[in-house]
Amino acid sequence: MLDDVRVVAFDIFGTTVDWHTGIAEQVGEVFERRRIGLDPAAFADSWRDRYLPAMARVNNAEREWAYLDALHRESLDALLAEHGVGNAVSESDRMRLVRAWHRLPAWPDSAELLTRLRRRYTVVALSNGGFGLLVDLVKAAGLPFDAILSAELARTYKPAPAPYLIAAQLLDVDPGEVLMVAAHGWDIDGARAAGLRTAFLERPAEKGPYREADRAAGTTCDIPATSASDLATRLGC
Amino acid sequence: MLDDVRVVAFDIFGTTVDWHTGIAEQVGEVFERRRIGLDPAAFADSWRDRYLPAMARVNNAEREWAYLDALHRESLDALLAEHGVGNAVSESDRMRLVRAWHRLPAWPDSAELLTRLRRRYTVVALSNGGFGLLVDLVKAAGLPFDAILSAELARTYKPAPAPYLIAAQLLDVDPGEVLMVAAHGWDIDGARAAGLRTAFLERPAEKGPYREADRAAGTTCDIPATSASDLATRLGC
Repeated sequence: MLDDVRVVAFDIFGTTVDWHTGIAEQVGEVFERRRIGLDPAAFADSWRDRYLPAMARVNNAEREWAYLDALHRESLDALLAEHGVGNAVSESDRMRLVRAWHRLPAWPDSAELLTRLRRRYTVVALSNGGFGLLVDLVKAAGLPFDAILSAELARTYKPAPAPYLIAAQLLDVDPGEVLMVAAHGWDIDGARAAGLRTAFLERPAEKGPYREADRAAGTTCDIPATSASDLATRLGC
Repeated sequence: MLDDVRVVAFDIFGTTVDWHTGIAEQVGEVFERRRIGLDPAAFADSWRDRYLPAMARVNNAEREWAYLDALHRESLDALLAEHGVGNAVSESDRMRLVRAWHRLPAWPDSAELLTRLRRRYTVVALSNGGFGLLVDLVKAAGLPFDAILSAELARTYKPAPAPYLIAAQLLDVDPGEVLMVAAHGWDIDGARAAGLRTAFLERPAEKGPYREADRAAGTTCDIPATSASDLATRLGC
């Protein structure tokens, strides 16, 4: 069914790395030092809730292209103010928290999954994170990608078609020769609309302890995979 | 002296991979099969001679952006015609020869050099090869870069400033925090003019048996390195 696939493109936040654990931990360190009584895991949820709407404003041309770090900073500032703790968190804390998105732990099976798939496919990162952010993150997490691609190269965010299409173009393949792997229905839907093939990789803990992760059953995709090893097997690796 | 350097960017053709051996071998296979009596090593020299002039025409706006594969194809066609063997070399041979630039052997010490430098620096490819070409080449040659960058992202070729500056911008560093490593004076000169730091890595066999390779002594650079291990030592790795 997927004999034409030559490139496997991985979403990063949630699909390849555990953003929730990483952000909640780093938020927790700042809150503890500043004696802020908010729940770091719930704060991480609220921060991430502003991710898609902030990118949508760029894609809808309500504002100019802005780097993901800038969007994270704006939503962080707003959230801290709304929680009445704006004065307790310094400029250097804020810079550190924005940088927290550059250092996140990989899911324990991610490196092995990429290694297996690389034997047969070109395996790349394709994320809304900025190029430099992704290079930092992938290096620190020890993820063996063949190449890193970012929505920054399209100056448009997923799920708009441009990031998916520019990835195919830069890799000299047709969109239908790229399989997008993601743990989110919105990313799968965007990739499918751009003409890519799609694999939903379930990451049940992706949204932390308070939220339900997206499930493959709710999404139209070529491959619904319940785990990393299920995905590798279905791709013949 | 180079304490500010955070990124080491490597040129590819000649600096990291042995283009001359790879191209002469693949040209030799086609010439033998087609019973063409030309010297493959000399043909590789002539083909490469057209590389800088072809890119200069793009940079001087004498023509629109053209992918390196397209420039290689044009110069191959012209060379075969000039040698009077245009009718002996088929379309599929020509496509295969253009693709030869996607499959070239690494210098035997390249992978180890990159591995050593990656412990301390972010280590990237920065070449005039197209992005897809570089991904193919780096994967096949087993070179462990942190990321791949291409002049294609600037739609302008080195030694113009744009490819060097876009690399720094995408990696979120200042130009002076990038060290360009190359075996060619023209690349070192271009990087220096763009504000990068520079290391000349001598590759004495880079131009094959008939030509003299560039030497560090003829070039103004921050680090003149006589070998891969000399370069790693000078960079504290």
